[in-house]
Amino acid sequence: MRQPLTRELTDLLERGRDRQLRLAVTGLSRSGKTAFLTSLVHQLRHAGLAARLDLLPAAREGRLLGARRVEQQDLGVPRFPYDRAMAALDDSPPRWPEPTRGISELRLVIRYRPRRPGWVGGDTRRLTLDLFDYPGEWLLDLPLLGHDFASWSRAQVLDRGERATLFADWRQAVAGLDPAETVEEGRLAEIAERYAEGLRAAREAGFADLQPGRFLLPGELEGAPVLQFFPLPGLERVDQARLAGLPPESLYATLARRFRHYQQHIVKPFYREHFRRFDRQIVLVDVLGALDAGPERFEDLSRALSRLMQSFDYGRRSLLSRLFAPRIERLAIAATKADHVTPEQHEPLTGLLEALLAEPLQDLRFADVPVRALSLASIRATEAREVDHQGRRQPVLRGTTLDGETTLLFPGEVPARLPDADFWTRQGFEFPAFRPLPRDGDTLPHIRLDVALDWLIGDKLT
Amino acid sequence: MRQPLTRELTDLLERGRDRQLRLAVTGLSRSGKTAFLTSLVHQLRHAGLAARLDLLPAAREGRLLGARRVEQQDLGVPRFPYDRAMAALDDSPPRWPEPTRGISELRLVIRYRPRRPGWVGGDTRRLTLDLFDYPGEWLLDLPLLGHDFASWSRAQVLDRGERATLFADWRQAVAGLDPAETVEEGRLAEIAERYAEGLRAAREAGFADLQPGRFLLPGELEGAPVLQFFPLPGLERVDQARLAGLPPESLYATLARRFRHYQQHIVKPFYREHFRRFDRQIVLVDVLGALDAGPERFEDLSRALSRLMQSFDYGRRSLLSRLFAPRIERLAIAATKADHVTPEQHEPLTGLLEALLAEPLQDLRFADVPVRALSLASIRATEAREVDHQGRRQPVLRGTTLDGETTLLFPGEVPARLPDADFWTRQGFEFPAFRPLPRDGDTLPHIRLDVALDWLIGDKLT
Repeated sequence: MRQPLTRELTDLLERGRDRQLRLAVTGLSRSGKTAFLTSLVHQLRHAGLAARLDLLPAAREGRLLGARRVEQQDLGVPRFPYDRAMAALDDSPPRWPEPTRGISELRLVIRYRPRRPGWVGGDTRRLTLDLFDYPGEWLLDLPLLGHDFASWSRAQVLDRGERATLFADWRQAVAGLDPAETVEEGRLAEIAERYAEGLRAAREAGFADLQPGRFLLPGELEGAPVLQFFPLPGLERVDQARLAGLPPESLYATLARRFRHYQQHIVKPFYREHFRRFDRQIVLVDVLGALDAGPERFEDLSRALSRLMQSFDYGRRSLLSRLFAPRIERLAIAATKADHVTPEQHEPLTGLLEALLAEPLQDLRFADVPVRALSLASIRATEAREVDHQGRRQPVLRGTTLDGETTLLFPGEVPARLPDADFWTRQGFEFPAFRPLPRDGDTLPHIRLDVALDWLIGDKLT
Repeated sequence: MRQPLTRELTDLLERGRDRQLRLAVTGLSRSGKTAFLTSLVHQLRHAGLAARLDLLPAAREGRLLGARRVEQQDLGVPRFPYDRAMAALDDSPPRWPEPTRGISELRLVIRYRPRRPGWVGGDTRRLTLDLFDYPGEWLLDLPLLGHDFASWSRAQVLDRGERATLFADWRQAVAGLDPAETVEEGRLAEIAERYAEGLRAAREAGFADLQPGRFLLPGELEGAPVLQFFPLPGLERVDQARLAGLPPESLYATLARRFRHYQQHIVKPFYREHFRRFDRQIVLVDVLGALDAGPERFEDLSRALSRLMQSFDYGRRSLLSRLFAPRIERLAIAATKADHVTPEQHEPLTGLLEALLAEPLQDLRFADVPVRALSLASIRATEAREVDHQGRRQPVLRGTTLDGETTLLFPGEVPARLPDADFWTRQGFEFPAFRPLPRDGDTLPHIRLDVALDWLIGDKLT
């Protein structure tokens, strides 16, 4: 009787022969993860025929034969809902796909012809590509592992700027609580809910630098005590030894216990079971959305990204390397929705992304992590046109807004470096949301998705 | 500095001194789990004052002083949403609380005075009561552990009676599939979705004996391959050795792999991590609902209950004992919504419950598991009245239907044994849904909840 190799052993062998690759896609909410992954799968599936992937050498040279979906490795992880996403794009009028929540995965087997056919295996080869999609918000929790509850509480600053207003209810509820008192379970749940409401309101208002990330996507943990803690203000005024000696039922000990449970059972398992197994990673950033939302949000995005990028900093002293020894060998960072500005603005857009990430990029390069920044549109929503304006050719966009109105528009100039006060005063930027373009046959139009693909998987297709 | 005992050690000591008890509540969808648990918590919290628990000796004797919610043991399990349930009952008009999904838990510390004050500990004592609520549907999956994929496929009979209609789409999709063929991931997901649709339709139609149970409450596993399998008809006509030799990407091997994953990663963890730690258990059954729904549903409920009760059969040869060594030491089985029939029908209702469960009850008694059957109403929705009818006093119910209509009604006679063809022909039973009664102060009126409490925890309060 045939003795099939175990799945794990087969995987190991495939990996050893460079035939398997685990590629992860992340980004904060609304950065365009679902559109990116949908388009990526679609382009690879139609690589031999309708897809336009001229900047991916294997495709340009006619060696990319196509891709087929097969069963993924981890049966307990939701499959990336590709069919549902395509159905939305093919609806009339076309809709953007529903965003995913939590992690999902999908496995493709890509068939290609190598540049030089080898001795064995005939003239076609297969690359097994595991795709993963997970919320960037989860990465914002990494720094939380470097804290204990007291230091984490001190690090949360919620009494300044617009955040102070958004968290007003919670701040009122938490004011005057004594770390030593016993707070009834129901009341504790209520105060925690106000904190979660503050986080949700902040996200609605466009803020991104929010912790703990899982409070925003609780899933099956909704109502569990591990998602019912909050920072305790004023701890810096209490003696350390006194805090450590408080009984287990005290407010301080209760919140600290939940904080530790969150670290151990929520944050760590994601890094241990998923993150450290990714080979390559793309991080999507909605730079234009933040530019549209004003200076406080833009600065917040910058802070959130620096925090998020810590998960890719493999410097030897990093918290991450010490805890999980991840092995991402190649990283891309992409400003999405590039089709929402006119073509000559794409270069400044990439420049702005690099400026936004200057510090983390510097750290990554120092740590010798190959990284590339680019701008792209996973699925085009506009066409570039030109109009005569005061005797000069002026580039504009033609697109249909979500309300169904077709417009010609010049959204404005993207600053190629971090915007200064002058930029914000001029408020020279308009960034409406457009519907995806109706699909023409099997072609899903994009901008530079092939460049991203080449950087992320091109070397495996030679 | 104080060295607090670890949580686990404290728990162990408390258990050893009979100060801790883990009580689980289950039942199929709509059997009244949320109402039961809400009322139970409410009665214990108000035990010293407004609650009427005359049939619970500790309360009758004035020794039950009250209960307080404290932090539960497992921080990663949702807390039972008691406050939300009470808010629904206190709404105007009062509403039944939203049903819970999945498992939830809540910890109470009960203070009481023992009958004979001991040498130590003063004259009041504490009992820590852990309450758990989980879907009875999960227990329907236990027998699945005794199958392999082929035998499970054969055991699913979906081509007869009303089920044949409900599963028609799936049967059409699966007809003619060859166990040896390779079915594309997307198509497999589609066929599985039709199977899940059949299960959902069957549940909507009032059927209860449905497998696999998690397909009906997928939660975060929505879209995961482990919830995308289905029985493969006609396997009995295929040679065993041929099936075993099929390659891993074949339809048969793929479904069998997912079936095994379901057994190992969905069914077993619940028994291992939760079920085997319960000390006492109450199973709620909506007998009246099934009586109202007709003979096919009634028989289906009977089959589902026999299957569900296998989880409490600790006979030495049972699958369960071999796998998990559970230790439930006391069991109650309750027909709920007893206030939906007139008081003189309560005894036949209990009789009917016992008849419905005759076989499992016999097995349990043989296995020496103390078990008691009763009928109760966790939260009263009607008042019992009498009217003159053709010169005789006739008992009736007064209640407000969900539409807001207040009626006087005699719902009919409950048969004290399994109903025969004659009963179903007469169709003499009417069972409208009533709103909960508006609450009068801190009293939540019930029927025999105190009897259930006495059986489940009374011996710990002496």
